[in-house]
Amino acid sequence: MSHTEPVKVEVGLGDRAYDILIGPGLLSSAGTEIADRLPGTRAAIVTDENVAAAHLETLKAGLEKGGIQAAVITLRAGEKTKSFAHLEEVVDSVLAAKLERRDVVIALGGGVIGDLAGFAAGIVRRGMNFVQVPTSLLAQVDSSVGGKTGINSARGKNLVGVFNQPKLVLADTGVLDTLPIREFRAGYAELAKYGLIDRPGFFAWLEENWQKVFAGGQERTEAIADACRAKADVVARDEFETGDRALLNLGHTFGHALEAATNYDGARLVHGEGVAIGMALAHRFSARLNLASPDDAERVEAHLRAVGLPWRMADISGELPDAEALLGFITQDKKVSRGALTFILTRGVGQAFIAKDVPPSEVLSFLKACHPDGSR
Amino acid sequence: MSHTEPVKVEVGLGDRAYDILIGPGLLSSAGTEIADRLPGTRAAIVTDENVAAAHLETLKAGLEKGGIQAAVITLRAGEKTKSFAHLEEVVDSVLAAKLERRDVVIALGGGVIGDLAGFAAGIVRRGMNFVQVPTSLLAQVDSSVGGKTGINSARGKNLVGVFNQPKLVLADTGVLDTLPIREFRAGYAELAKYGLIDRPGFFAWLEENWQKVFAGGQERTEAIADACRAKADVVARDEFETGDRALLNLGHTFGHALEAATNYDGARLVHGEGVAIGMALAHRFSARLNLASPDDAERVEAHLRAVGLPWRMADISGELPDAEALLGFITQDKKVSRGALTFILTRGVGQAFIAKDVPPSEVLSFLKACHPDGSR
Ligand SMILES: NC(=O)c1ccc[n+]([C@@H]2O[C@H](COP(=O)([O-])OP(=O)(O)OC[C@H]3O[C@@H](n4cnc5c(N)ncnc54)[C@H](O)[C@@H]3O)[C@@H](O)[C@H]2O)c1
Ligand SMILES: NC(=O)c1ccc[n+]([C@@H]2O[C@H](COP(=O)([O-])OP(=O)(O)OC[C@H]3O[C@@H](n4cnc5c(N)ncnc54)[C@H](O)[C@@H]3O)[C@@H](O)[C@H]2O)c1
Ligand SMILES: [Zn+2]
Ligand SMILES: [Zn+2]
Repeated sequence: MSHTEPVKVEVGLGDRAYDILIGPGLLSSAGTEIADRLPGTRAAIVTDENVAAAHLETLKAGLEKGGIQAAVITLRAGEKTKSFAHLEEVVDSVLAAKLERRDVVIALGGGVIGDLAGFAAGIVRRGMNFVQVPTSLLAQVDSSVGGKTGINSARGKNLVGVFNQPKLVLADTGVLDTLPIREFRAGYAELAKYGLIDRPGFFAWLEENWQKVFAGGQERTEAIADACRAKADVVARDEFETGDRALLNLGHTFGHALEAATNYDGARLVHGEGVAIGMALAHRFSARLNLASPDDAERVEAHLRAVGLPWRMADISGELPDAEALLGFITQDKKVSRGALTFILTRGVGQAFIAKDVPPSEVLSFLKACHPDGSR
Repeated sequence: MSHTEPVKVEVGLGDRAYDILIGPGLLSSAGTEIADRLPGTRAAIVTDENVAAAHLETLKAGLEKGGIQAAVITLRAGEKTKSFAHLEEVVDSVLAAKLERRDVVIALGGGVIGDLAGFAAGIVRRGMNFVQVPTSLLAQVDSSVGGKTGINSARGKNLVGVFNQPKLVLADTGVLDTLPIREFRAGYAELAKYGLIDRPGFFAWLEENWQKVFAGGQERTEAIADACRAKADVVARDEFETGDRALLNLGHTFGHALEAATNYDGARLVHGEGVAIGMALAHRFSARLNLASPDDAERVEAHLRAVGLPWRMADISGELPDAEALLGFITQDKKVSRGALTFILTRGVGQAFIAKDVPPSEVLSFLKACHPDGSR
């Protein structure tokens, strides 16, 4: 375990401002980091079975060093855990532990655990303290930062939740070594997203250095810190997603539709993979609308392919619903406004923008054009 | 239906400020009042069966005058509706109506509907617009104002929820004419509470004029407006209950324990009745602790008795759990802080204060002293 100081990124949200600490070995110093910020707190850790097996004891020992006792709530891993039933289970368990508003709920896990535990912390006693300890790459670069929490509904992903900023994010880059490679790649899609939105230099750096990010070490920490800075900037500008923050949804409208179309079955498609395909589709769609050059779409596809990510619908195993049905998933998605569709489109790598007037008919004909049909 | 202008009370919460309109006939002007503030909105009305039977058509017609179409979600009446299961049902129905963040959820009902619908509005798409149309006296003077929303948990009342300020409160004083007298009295307990907290003049006025408030007319509107002003003042000072707002819990620690002890069975005890008994107990307990004169406790008991409210545990039908069990309900209540109990106590009528250091042993011996035991 390295003894270098963690990198600190500050999320500037006035009286809701907080730090993101990034580096190896942070689980072991969790107790002092949390006790410094929340003196006298008690805690409940929410985690999943995979993460608990690999990292729960390290975190508990780290908390004890800061004098923090913790109840533990361990859930089944997977997207289906982001449900009303599990929300109720977490809320009940936190209440059963007799925690108060100034005590803390700690999310130890990927985006599923972070979203669910953050939502529960936001509604138990109308809001308790909350700390994110993200353990997947996706959670470290995306879901743990910015305060969006929530669960899925039968009617779509992430349709129910609250804005609830954590008091602290501890991104231990060492825990990523136990993450399955497929999940690491999925998180990498969200990391690359920041380059595609408005940081072309970062995207170019990733094209050169992605192997080092996968391997670990200083490049991994730097890349995660850059991603957190990018996200923190957007969130500080637009905490409640009334404007710019929607840019972070690059790739997500198509991605969510594909996740819904595969019934949130992680064996077929995990969130970050949906985003990877969605980002490639957003670039391809922008090229088709003559907004961007097909060369940019090709460049994005090539990079996703190089790191081993899926980048087209045909990369999803099993049958997909037809284009009309996919459009149906999109129009039920939350980025719908009075009939016209809002999409994140692009003028090229690093030049994404919010388009509020995309005609559903254009989306439909594009989906038909790139649908794998019965061809596989 | 009167054509006098409604009384307006402003809740001063910066960018979350809103109006409370109070007066007869407001359901009929709901459409214009809402459309003025939320142009182009669509709506979902959440209501219960009793209120729907008496007032839904009037509200729908009123909304249509403002060009507002509304989906309707009708639930069973009663405290048990404030549950996770019904929260999920409301959330699903609002999503099924394809409403967006800038559309509005309208709560048409008493505190149960207001708390549940306000919570649902706060979490669908991480927060939609929300309007309160309170139809019980309790909801008009208390629950519809101030943004506390939530549901009950098996572990206690109102333990789960969010702060979610409405965009508007329409308190139609005419709808109270269909309210069962028992419910009217229960709401009256919360009305009198503001006098007992810090408005001794208001309490004295009520001792003189309570019959006119029950009868309707201008005194009723004035009393409700005074109560809303009192609550709005407290809420503007302390929106998130980190201090003074706790004064509004006068009578509620005992009251909630009694509600829990009667299993939230409205046939035995409704919320405002619990608060009435709780307020009498808070005064009696303060006298026992030599904080207030027994004459003040007697005065409070006498007024509650005069209006026909229960004022002691013996007024609850059926068996009650013993004093230890009642204390157990209190320590699980949310106003617990690191072992010491927080109570709202008083130095006399209109002189309530927050006591953070009440020893559980004092509460227990007091509960034993006033427990009806097997004596009834
Ligand atoms: N709130 C936001 O702003 C936001 C942003 C992006 C994504 N999300 C949400 O995040 C979720 C996806 O996050 P995710 O990809 O982290 O999913 P996840 O939480 O399901 O984690 C992926 C898998 O990796 C396992 N895992 C996590 N860390 C591990 C580790 N260190 N070692 C071994 N196994 C580990 C988990 O058990 C799980 O099986 C989605 O629900 C998505 O909607 C939220
Ligand atoms: N959010 C807050 O700040 C706050 C404050 C105080 C109380 N509360 C909550 O409010 C609830 C109690 O409110 P309540 O007493 O209004 O209960 P309620 O909503 O159950 O209404 C009481 C009864 O009156 C009926 N009713 C309501 N309006 C009517 C009308 N105009 N005509 C005929 N029948 C009518 C209802 O159907 C119900 O049967 C509790 O759950 C309590 O926790 C919340
Ligand atoms: Zn994502
Ligand atoms: Zn009350």
